[in-house]
Amino acid sequence: MSRIRTFPSFAMESLLRSSCQVLLPSVATCKRLHDCAKAKRRLLTRLYQPRSLWEESSSDNEATSRSQRLMIKAGLIRSSGPGCFHYLPYTVRAMEKLIRLIDREMQNIGGQKIDMPTLCSAALWRQSERWDLMGKELFRLTDRHNLEYCLGPTHEELVTHLVSMEGGINYKELPLLLYQITRKFRDEKRPCFGLLRGREFYMKDMYTFDLSEEAAHTTYRNVCGAYSDIFKILGLPFVKVQADAGNIGGTMSHEFHLPANIGEDKLLVCGNCDFSANVETLNKNEIKCPSCSGALKETKGIEIGHTFYLGTKYSRVFKAICYDSQGKPITTEMGCYGIGVSRLLAASLEVLCNDDDIHWPGIIAPYQVCLVSPKKGSKEAEAISVAESLYDEITQNVVQLRDETVMDDRDNLTIGKRVKEAHMMGYPYIIVVGKKALENAPLFEVRCHHTREVQFMSRSGLIDLLRSVEVI
Amino acid sequence: MSRIRTFPSFAMESLLRSSCQVLLPSVATCKRLHDCAKAKRRLLTRLYQPRSLWEESSSDNEATSRSQRLMIKAGLIRSSGPGCFHYLPYTVRAMEKLIRLIDREMQNIGGQKIDMPTLCSAALWRQSERWDLMGKELFRLTDRHNLEYCLGPTHEELVTHLVSMEGGINYKELPLLLYQITRKFRDEKRPCFGLLRGREFYMKDMYTFDLSEEAAHTTYRNVCGAYSDIFKILGLPFVKVQADAGNIGGTMSHEFHLPANIGEDKLLVCGNCDFSANVETLNKNEIKCPSCSGALKETKGIEIGHTFYLGTKYSRVFKAICYDSQGKPITTEMGCYGIGVSRLLAASLEVLCNDDDIHWPGIIAPYQVCLVSPKKGSKEAEAISVAESLYDEITQNVVQLRDETVMDDRDNLTIGKRVKEAHMMGYPYIIVVGKKALENAPLFEVRCHHTREVQFMSRSGLIDLLRSVEVI
Repeated sequence: MSRIRTFPSFAMESLLRSSCQVLLPSVATCKRLHDCAKAKRRLLTRLYQPRSLWEESSSDNEATSRSQRLMIKAGLIRSSGPGCFHYLPYTVRAMEKLIRLIDREMQNIGGQKIDMPTLCSAALWRQSERWDLMGKELFRLTDRHNLEYCLGPTHEELVTHLVSMEGGINYKELPLLLYQITRKFRDEKRPCFGLLRGREFYMKDMYTFDLSEEAAHTTYRNVCGAYSDIFKILGLPFVKVQADAGNIGGTMSHEFHLPANIGEDKLLVCGNCDFSANVETLNKNEIKCPSCSGALKETKGIEIGHTFYLGTKYSRVFKAICYDSQGKPITTEMGCYGIGVSRLLAASLEVLCNDDDIHWPGIIAPYQVCLVSPKKGSKEAEAISVAESLYDEITQNVVQLRDETVMDDRDNLTIGKRVKEAHMMGYPYIIVVGKKALENAPLFEVRCHHTREVQFMSRSGLIDLLRSVEVI
Repeated sequence: MSRIRTFPSFAMESLLRSSCQVLLPSVATCKRLHDCAKAKRRLLTRLYQPRSLWEESSSDNEATSRSQRLMIKAGLIRSSGPGCFHYLPYTVRAMEKLIRLIDREMQNIGGQKIDMPTLCSAALWRQSERWDLMGKELFRLTDRHNLEYCLGPTHEELVTHLVSMEGGINYKELPLLLYQITRKFRDEKRPCFGLLRGREFYMKDMYTFDLSEEAAHTTYRNVCGAYSDIFKILGLPFVKVQADAGNIGGTMSHEFHLPANIGEDKLLVCGNCDFSANVETLNKNEIKCPSCSGALKETKGIEIGHTFYLGTKYSRVFKAICYDSQGKPITTEMGCYGIGVSRLLAASLEVLCNDDDIHWPGIIAPYQVCLVSPKKGSKEAEAISVAESLYDEITQNVVQLRDETVMDDRDNLTIGKRVKEAHMMGYPYIIVVGKKALENAPLFEVRCHHTREVQFMSRSGLIDLLRSVEVI
């Protein structure tokens, strides 16, 4: 039995180090590795990214959308059954960045992160009358004691019940914005388009609580503003439309869409004013804008976000109240707000990529930089060691790229083939160490994937450039 | 429709900012808030931490372990049914830190993070013959097409199938260490002790692939080493024992335990040598150490980690092969390794806390610092503004504590009551702004929660001290 926690001497300094926080130098871990220096470089050959399907194969043809085809081709995801996917390492990195971005923006407007169970009791869903309403979309199961549950596709019941259990929210705590980013479940009739319409998916769902309708509307506008910010930061062309509240309920609802041909929603956008709507919300054959009578243009959209002003639909059922400054109990006004996180990732690729190459929203690219070294046995082979020292210089001097730089060490392949693959994988910056790296004043080829612009830069120019790359 | 992605001019610099990464200044978000400066301070009154159960209530008595009782009392978790819990904001912060620590240590030994589905097809589980073996512990359900699934309690089947789908691993990619940190499910007969034995829980599960038994043993030792590092960094007294492989299978297995009275495993530890084992692995009535014949001492443990050398148990079934340097296909040698992440969090509290106060492993405390300002109307009330400026100074000058400092702004309460509560919540550093903050050379009271040591420090001394606090 190893007892590590020691009870320290009086000096505050020593407390800090020995007991409040026991930290081993990372060297301890490092020693275990056979080749420490090499292990520190992130080598492409060591990354798990299945390439057996790299060349177009028959199974690619089953892929029904551009993002799905590219994600399978590049070894980003693998199907494990209808609507269920393995996320492979590149995808996990992109997802974690997307989640950090959403966390940041939700917390900027006062959101507090919680984590609710997947198993939702049927009793609560019956109370809200959604147990029957949801029909076959709900995955249902019973436990060993024959109690019924569903796998939560959304959590209005649980969160309202949670808040009501505490016996009321004080007005000082309002607006209360609780959110989670967890796996959700929906038994889609025909899952398709990869992560765009799965049966298991990641969703960010936020639930807000206010004292009055007016305050709830202010909160609604704040959350919608944060949603717009997120999509802008990702560099996505999005459209916000008025929407139908469906089986969530409530009296006001908006959807955020990425316009795309494979989108499953029909949107009508006014050419004159800023009116836009999901066709579901309009009368059939409506062809003029209800605001300005301008012409409406039809487009298709992939839904990436949905906001609902719920009023007291759930708070009445579960008796979730708040207290005003006079101590009077008031049924709380609620809103709920969803972003399909895994869908947003795939939808971004759907609209940003071309048929050959992946284009990530820059800030969530799995790695920011790919460094390509010369081919073994080629004229510029001496520059292999230059590439290694450049890699070390980048990861030592550009703090935020320490964990963001991949060395394509497949030195049995030509530079050209590897550069092509690097563009296909969508690294925002591709650095090629070639012939010019051996000159007296060494130059490195820098390719901006997004614009396909190419420049030769000195070592210090390159480092300066990389220092300005923003990561999350 | 707002099109944000612009196609930029030639200059590389402008590319970086305008197109590869569109980033709005966070000011944009900030403007939406009514009171920006105030919103930036993390005020205790704005944190969702239900206090209705703060005072011992009858429901506390139902709590069956110290960690569960404290976590309910402090508003860290709420039950939503047998073995299912809401994690409230403080807990989510601690969990995210614990996950970052585990990620770091797993990646240090070459682990690559993936994310596998929760819905596991019955067909795969039948192939490994575990569908029947697992009995009532498995949550089972059928989808709308009557296909059978279980909610994965562990993922040997899925990961082995994933790897085999790619048609074989090249020897250069070995050892391959894939892991995930996801929610797992087990229909426990009697869930109890809060997060210690739940039906939904977070687990880190790693699966390793090697070319030979010898290589697999090296990998096994590396992962065990990383596990020890994690528990040491957390400052936990742990014991590693030989264990039974149970229904996971394989030929070698170890468990990591935290010794505790409520532990459900009986361990025998030798007083002479480093032998220790779960009683399950020994003959009944064995009282002497099999290695040195020394006396064995019995203790109880909470299992926080479990490692298995699997051999080819799963790789044979799913035909997961790797290729050696001659291109010869070989059935891969596997290992699997679990850490119960949510259980580890609760178990840490179980062994580190006393009956009144929470003690977090320092590095995963939800917040590192709590700043207590004077009571309104008291003699030192003038110092309220000193507390505010001290808060701002800390968050501006101590980079790593920017998001780690809470201001207890409940200035209707005495300093004494709030300090008591801050100790109960387990903030590692509690700073009190009292009478001495108004002196010509202001002094602040600094309390190290872990040792209960108290010192008065100047502003600059305090900042220096806080700069050395390590966070993850």
